[in-house]
Amino acid sequence: MIAIDWGTTSFRAYRLDSAGAIVATRSAPKGILSVPAGGFAAVLDEQIRPWKEERPIVMSGMVGSRQGWVEAPYVPCPAGFPEIAAAMREVRKGTWVVPGVSCRDDCGVPDVMRGEETQVLGAERDGLFCLPGTHSKWVEVRAGRIARFSTAMTGEVYAVLKSHSILGRMMEEGKANARAFRDGVERSGEPGGLLHHLFGVRTKGLMGELDAAAASSYLSGLLIGHEIRSVRPPSFLLLGEPSLAELYGEAAAALGCETERLDATSGTRALFRLGVMLRGKEES
Amino acid sequence: MIAIDWGTTSFRAYRLDSAGAIVATRSAPKGILSVPAGGFAAVLDEQIRPWKEERPIVMSGMVGSRQGWVEAPYVPCPAGFPEIAAAMREVRKGTWVVPGVSCRDDCGVPDVMRGEETQVLGAERDGLFCLPGTHSKWVEVRAGRIARFSTAMTGEVYAVLKSHSILGRMMEEGKANARAFRDGVERSGEPGGLLHHLFGVRTKGLMGELDAAAASSYLSGLLIGHEIRSVRPPSFLLLGEPSLAELYGEAAAALGCETERLDATSGTRALFRLGVMLRGKEES
Repeated sequence: MIAIDWGTTSFRAYRLDSAGAIVATRSAPKGILSVPAGGFAAVLDEQIRPWKEERPIVMSGMVGSRQGWVEAPYVPCPAGFPEIAAAMREVRKGTWVVPGVSCRDDCGVPDVMRGEETQVLGAERDGLFCLPGTHSKWVEVRAGRIARFSTAMTGEVYAVLKSHSILGRMMEEGKANARAFRDGVERSGEPGGLLHHLFGVRTKGLMGELDAAAASSYLSGLLIGHEIRSVRPPSFLLLGEPSLAELYGEAAAALGCETERLDATSGTRALFRLGVMLRGKEES
Repeated sequence: MIAIDWGTTSFRAYRLDSAGAIVATRSAPKGILSVPAGGFAAVLDEQIRPWKEERPIVMSGMVGSRQGWVEAPYVPCPAGFPEIAAAMREVRKGTWVVPGVSCRDDCGVPDVMRGEETQVLGAERDGLFCLPGTHSKWVEVRAGRIARFSTAMTGEVYAVLKSHSILGRMMEEGKANARAFRDGVERSGEPGGLLHHLFGVRTKGLMGELDAAAASSYLSGLLIGHEIRSVRPPSFLLLGEPSLAELYGEAAAALGCETERLDATSGTRALFRLGVMLRGKEES
């Protein structure tokens, strides 16, 4: 079968053997935003041409959003493999889209994810997962089902402040500065709130107390520190891109949280399992 | 004399009579960022041509920053009229630049202002002042001196999220929506932290629970709510542009804080008083 992670800006395909092991990989900058309306089938066929006989094809990520191939409505929490498999959408014979998951917090405000549910469930572990990124996800899994989750806009806020605010104008490119990052994490626990702490990036620079080349590390520590403190878990599982998981692990350690890093191939394992469930459904 | 408020993006000049009353006003989009290096005297002379015999000229705002006419170093808190008058810089005969004010919070992180010190001291009141804006200032005045203050990047964070983030992409222009603004203020007190609450602007929109035309009001309420909650004053004095002061007043009321609106001409009064102090200094 073929497992596909089709997100906003990238496309990744994995050919799996009958035991679920990855035998070949393809990736391309063909995220859904680059696909013209009605063009999804053509892009998919072009990308997986050498494997075109393989079925089923199971796809997760933004390909199932309103802007994707087909909108696969969110499955409400609690959501595990059975609920997600039951809500998959077949876009053409043997080609399936995995739905996202939604929940509401105690105050009734909705939250959503698409793609991360596959990574989390593929880890086959209960616990609190953190998936850092543009929109970081904190996901609680109980008895094999996603019980609840919340999103923090940390990565995107970092990017827009760096590219478009007065804070970015004083930054110079530099390599990651571990000391400035830790200072930012520490600052996140001091009084004043995030909107005040952000201005400190500028004033510390003005006063010669923060190098222009270290300012982005300080800002990153500040934001990640605020994110982790808002959740305040005693421990959590880290699942994501290695350099970002490294930063979150450091920030968590500075805040006294224990973390365990998981490998990031769990998404493919979950898609394999969903593919097997489909086959069972077809045969029954 | 002439009082001038010369900021980053605008220039405002006031001709004052011998009692400090405003007899004429000029304003132009000639902020310091639009002035070429070495060009400050020429821009000033052009703007105040009809009043060119008047002296002294007293200027406050970013004209005294590193990017301005001359850098007038920050005066540390506590700072009142005597400390500020003593640190004014004469850029040419009879033309003076007012310095900004700096302080450090309990954790040693610096903060700065330029221009707001004049508005606050001109009000001739003790108390906690809020000056909302791109970089909002919260200023505590005791016995006629600025004792301490802190800055929140609320206005700039609002602007960059609206113009450059995924939140802005789903917004449509609409008139201010008081209900959505109040919902945002209320949300700011719920668990999860600002970085999580921001994502709610998107998810509420996705779920059809927030109109595209009301989303910017909700975001504004969320950010202003977080700002005021970080200070949590029982009451404060509001000094600033009327429409923004109105929003802060509404948010404060929703949070159970009392506010008093002050008129925004206090900056000119302070510059007049500094001008009188200069004259006294010259005569003594």
